[in-house]
Amino acid sequence: MSAQIIAIDAMGGDFGPRNIVQASIACLSATPSLHLTLVGQPSLLEPLVSGLAAADRARLQIVAASEVVEMDERPSQALRSKPDSSMRIALELVRDGKAQACVSAGNTGALMALSRFVLKTVPGIDRPAMVAAIPTQSGFCQLLDLGANVDCSAEHLYQFALMGSVAAQALGIQRPRVALLNIGTEDIKGNQQVKLAATLLQNARGINYVGFVEGDGLYRGEADVVVCDGFVGNILLKSSEGLATMISTRIEALFKRGVLARAVGVLAMPLLKRLKADLAPARHNGASFLGLQGIVIKSHGSAGVEGLQSAIQRALIEIEENLPGRLHSRLEDLLP
Amino acid sequence: MSAQIIAIDAMGGDFGPRNIVQASIACLSATPSLHLTLVGQPSLLEPLVSGLAAADRARLQIVAASEVVEMDERPSQALRSKPDSSMRIALELVRDGKAQACVSAGNTGALMALSRFVLKTVPGIDRPAMVAAIPTQSGFCQLLDLGANVDCSAEHLYQFALMGSVAAQALGIQRPRVALLNIGTEDIKGNQQVKLAATLLQNARGINYVGFVEGDGLYRGEADVVVCDGFVGNILLKSSEGLATMISTRIEALFKRGVLARAVGVLAMPLLKRLKADLAPARHNGASFLGLQGIVIKSHGSAGVEGLQSAIQRALIEIEENLPGRLHSRLEDLLP
Repeated sequence: MSAQIIAIDAMGGDFGPRNIVQASIACLSATPSLHLTLVGQPSLLEPLVSGLAAADRARLQIVAASEVVEMDERPSQALRSKPDSSMRIALELVRDGKAQACVSAGNTGALMALSRFVLKTVPGIDRPAMVAAIPTQSGFCQLLDLGANVDCSAEHLYQFALMGSVAAQALGIQRPRVALLNIGTEDIKGNQQVKLAATLLQNARGINYVGFVEGDGLYRGEADVVVCDGFVGNILLKSSEGLATMISTRIEALFKRGVLARAVGVLAMPLLKRLKADLAPARHNGASFLGLQGIVIKSHGSAGVEGLQSAIQRALIEIEENLPGRLHSRLEDLLP
Repeated sequence: MSAQIIAIDAMGGDFGPRNIVQASIACLSATPSLHLTLVGQPSLLEPLVSGLAAADRARLQIVAASEVVEMDERPSQALRSKPDSSMRIALELVRDGKAQACVSAGNTGALMALSRFVLKTVPGIDRPAMVAAIPTQSGFCQLLDLGANVDCSAEHLYQFALMGSVAAQALGIQRPRVALLNIGTEDIKGNQQVKLAATLLQNARGINYVGFVEGDGLYRGEADVVVCDGFVGNILLKSSEGLATMISTRIEALFKRGVLARAVGVLAMPLLKRLKADLAPARHNGASFLGLQGIVIKSHGSAGVEGLQSAIQRALIEIEENLPGRLHSRLEDLLP
């Protein structure tokens, strides 16, 4: 395995650089071929890496960036008035071939806007989409878009389906079943965009389109890739997080009601914790931006060290699988 | 309490009249002031009520309807070509003042189309909405629309907010907190309809509008009424059902892994069962159609006897609270 270089926006996220650096160091130890470039304010970053063993330190570079995109900043502002933000410099390292992927836990909207501006989309893709794996009865499904695109045309949904299919293949699924999220499975159901996207997908070569899937069908594992607009995807994802938290809170309360219950609650807790983690993928495993001429992974703003590590791992997989390259050649096959 | 008369579409639902009649009989026993009118094919219904005690039988009437709206029938077809369906006759009983509410477990789209056609909307309301209570960390919230209206304008969302607020008050909440479901809580987030609806609600008199709520905020109990279009609401509801089922399946599996686990699993099962029921409100508690000049409750097509009983109970509450009348006078206050 040849060396991989990943640029890390060391200033993004709710907790500043400490968690990010810690996750970076853990990943360096775990993957000897990995090189990381931390982008941010050297005066803050240097002390955090000072204790590092020389062998690991040799694979860690710090690149200076004087500005930070705030978590509540408007994307347009980040784009126009912060040319030296850690987020932007990290993306420019990818654009310039100095890194093969960028990982950030910063402002999602700004990361999307800057990614599009700096890296551009793959020819044939109008808008990048945000995808993450969510757990189902039978494994995982790739859900997209998760909030990058609020209003989507049928053509956009079609492109998301295509990108999701390529991403699922890169993750090892042979002939991913691709579905459109809808409020019924009959042809007459849904809004115009979804109905029209269904027609596009029925006629698409090389996509294993399996039709509409409903909200419950998604969790039953009826598809490997589920496509929707970013408004719906974001609400599905966050309400699932909220519901999983609520259920787990109620079960915890149940297991505190008596000595026996308390004793056995211990059995259920690890499972619940794992479920909660699975159900907050953007927080725990990182979400990918698909459709860009480069790899960008978004970790949740409040991600802990483990979540940030997962995001870096996802970047590694996408580098190995050359996801943007795969998508590019797939689109060249499909487009006339 | 004066007598209430509820018309029951005895032919709707996935399982035919048996469950429906059984639930009707149970409700008659429980509520001495209740009268029920079963609408359907007398040859099927008479045998099912033959064993009834005379006192209860006196409060049960059968009204003949020769046609049945199929579960997969197009609403337009049900509207145009089945003038003598059990669903339509039940609604006409409400229109003609012979019943105060209609309960059906039949085809949702057809029930909505027929309700609008037969009962008409309250002046000031363009489209009826479907609402149900879903559980939250702090109680319940009324979520609407649940699928009756796929594409909604800001004005529609505003009307849903108004209807949801009146319905929540009827259910005993003093000053219901009304929120719009969105993908962020900042003003700049969301699609045009949601942003514009926010402006309408900020300026509305008599609505306790609390702003945007996200998917996780909904389950944290941040609002008593959560408003969205029917596409989003339906997907949120069904994905929540699917997720609750998945979690409960996983936990059941965990509790089968050993003798101790098996023994204590018994503790958790009633809670999980209850949670699952709470999370499938349309199936278990009935969903209301709001905004009509009459009360219509939709029970889930696959509802069991208990679910159908809950739907009849919800109809009783709405009769007592005179929900359509409340909505009507509220709209007269608000509109110029």
